[in-house]
Amino acid sequence: MQTVSSVEEMKRYCRAVHTRGRAIGLVPTMGALHDGHFGLIQRAQSKCPVVVVSIFVNPTQFGAGEDFEAYPRNLEQDIRALESLRVDAVFAPDAGAVYPPGFSTHVDPGRMAATLEGAVRPGHFRGVATVVLKLFQIVQPDVACFGQKDFQQVVIIRQLVEDLNVDVQLEIVPTVREPDGLAKSSRNFYLNSEERQAATVLPRALHRAQELWWAGERSPAPVINAMQHALAAEPRLQADYVTIREPRRLEIPETIEPGSVALGAVRVGSTRLIDNVIFGPREMSDAKLVDLVLARYSRPR
Amino acid sequence: MQTVSSVEEMKRYCRAVHTRGRAIGLVPTMGALHDGHFGLIQRAQSKCPVVVVSIFVNPTQFGAGEDFEAYPRNLEQDIRALESLRVDAVFAPDAGAVYPPGFSTHVDPGRMAATLEGAVRPGHFRGVATVVLKLFQIVQPDVACFGQKDFQQVVIIRQLVEDLNVDVQLEIVPTVREPDGLAKSSRNFYLNSEERQAATVLPRALHRAQELWWAGERSPAPVINAMQHALAAEPRLQADYVTIREPRRLEIPETIEPGSVALGAVRVGSTRLIDNVIFGPREMSDAKLVDLVLARYSRPR
Repeated sequence: MQTVSSVEEMKRYCRAVHTRGRAIGLVPTMGALHDGHFGLIQRAQSKCPVVVVSIFVNPTQFGAGEDFEAYPRNLEQDIRALESLRVDAVFAPDAGAVYPPGFSTHVDPGRMAATLEGAVRPGHFRGVATVVLKLFQIVQPDVACFGQKDFQQVVIIRQLVEDLNVDVQLEIVPTVREPDGLAKSSRNFYLNSEERQAATVLPRALHRAQELWWAGERSPAPVINAMQHALAAEPRLQADYVTIREPRRLEIPETIEPGSVALGAVRVGSTRLIDNVIFGPREMSDAKLVDLVLARYSRPR
Repeated sequence: MQTVSSVEEMKRYCRAVHTRGRAIGLVPTMGALHDGHFGLIQRAQSKCPVVVVSIFVNPTQFGAGEDFEAYPRNLEQDIRALESLRVDAVFAPDAGAVYPPGFSTHVDPGRMAATLEGAVRPGHFRGVATVVLKLFQIVQPDVACFGQKDFQQVVIIRQLVEDLNVDVQLEIVPTVREPDGLAKSSRNFYLNSEERQAATVLPRALHRAQELWWAGERSPAPVINAMQHALAAEPRLQADYVTIREPRRLEIPETIEPGSVALGAVRVGSTRLIDNVIFGPREMSDAKLVDLVLARYSRPR
């Protein structure tokens, strides 16, 4: 496995792979790798003969007072894990290589960056969109894999790829969960055992929304109310938002349809967690639910 | 020569060229082609076996009340000219193909987009940066050629390429002028014969700045004053700005150095014209003067 920190060296490596006619799958991460990331890597490996994993805790997607400094960093451990997964190359640049002095050009995702996570974290998606476009330019991946857990990020990057005509196929991989339902996240490392238990109320509230939909409820308001009620029952947990959106523009739908999404963000102590579930038939697998979302994106060309 | 209007077809064409191992030179234009554009095409042909010229009057780089509607459009004549120049492909999409419904992602060039042209034309460089990045993604050019005449555009696109890690080599081609010094521009078509004569005061004022520099003046203030004085002598001409900048950040330099630039923008009747000259030794060719600017961009990696 190649471990690369220089942008120019990463470009050379990827150009050489493409010159040999081999496709590259990219998995962008902030490190502190867990089963969620490993699912992304497996997907990339199933699609491409060469897989590049980037590890970069991107300062520009963290706001003032957020957890940039505290964000878990385990580069050596991550590299050992990626080696055992037979990843081909790790791209782990430092911030000065990604944002040299004088850096001034950003990618602005527009209105969808101002809602949900963007309302709580101003500038977050501008930082995400900029670094993801940079990674796309450096690696020129044929396929790039993102996790459903960061649902708004997926929607914004999909729109970016369409709007800026980036030549990459996006893969959305279903959220990986702990046995008790908590979505895998690097930020789960922050939780003490009491907080860890309180955090499971978020996936339970989202699951409650699915149950109401399965029982025939199609109107967002009562479903959102039920989720708020479920979250309010846990005093150690503060909700930033819990809502239902359609997956194309992230607007509140009149009717909850297959492919609509319930999203929530909560604070447990000083830790902020997000999660989401996709509405669809009860018997449908998570992978098929993601396909429902993707089907909402297809449009005539 | 291929004439292509579909984004997907252009992508396919360019992918096929690259698969055969041939490099592509891109010349982005808004059509109404003149000798300035032909110089860009020649440069592209000298660098790459395949040259793509895009013709797209980009609505997002025009502000309210500007000349988007009136901008000269001669697609058939342009295509004949490009055919006779043995250009390989013309990409002439319509606005709906470039900006489909729901389009929302933009490239924001940062502070350098707010000065000079950007101060007079808010949003102009955001429109330019976005469409140029899109063309880079669609064509994946090895080389892209831009004219020195749009100097601020060159600086902003150079910064974009560096910041977003776009894998393209930029070529800056010296301004082509009429015998009386007026820079070639599609907007010269707007001028009546009186205005046409008045317009020559802009290149004369810029030339006056060079003369003062050749005579030993190195301080911006007296040189800017002399240019303002020259422009004020022509009542049919209103100056938007006339100034001196260094070419990296477009800031006013303490001392005019080789590679510093004098820039001006004027209105003649309802027509707006821009021009610039690069400071350097009197005997230096225009191509070498452009090299002086490029040398100011090189930095350690």
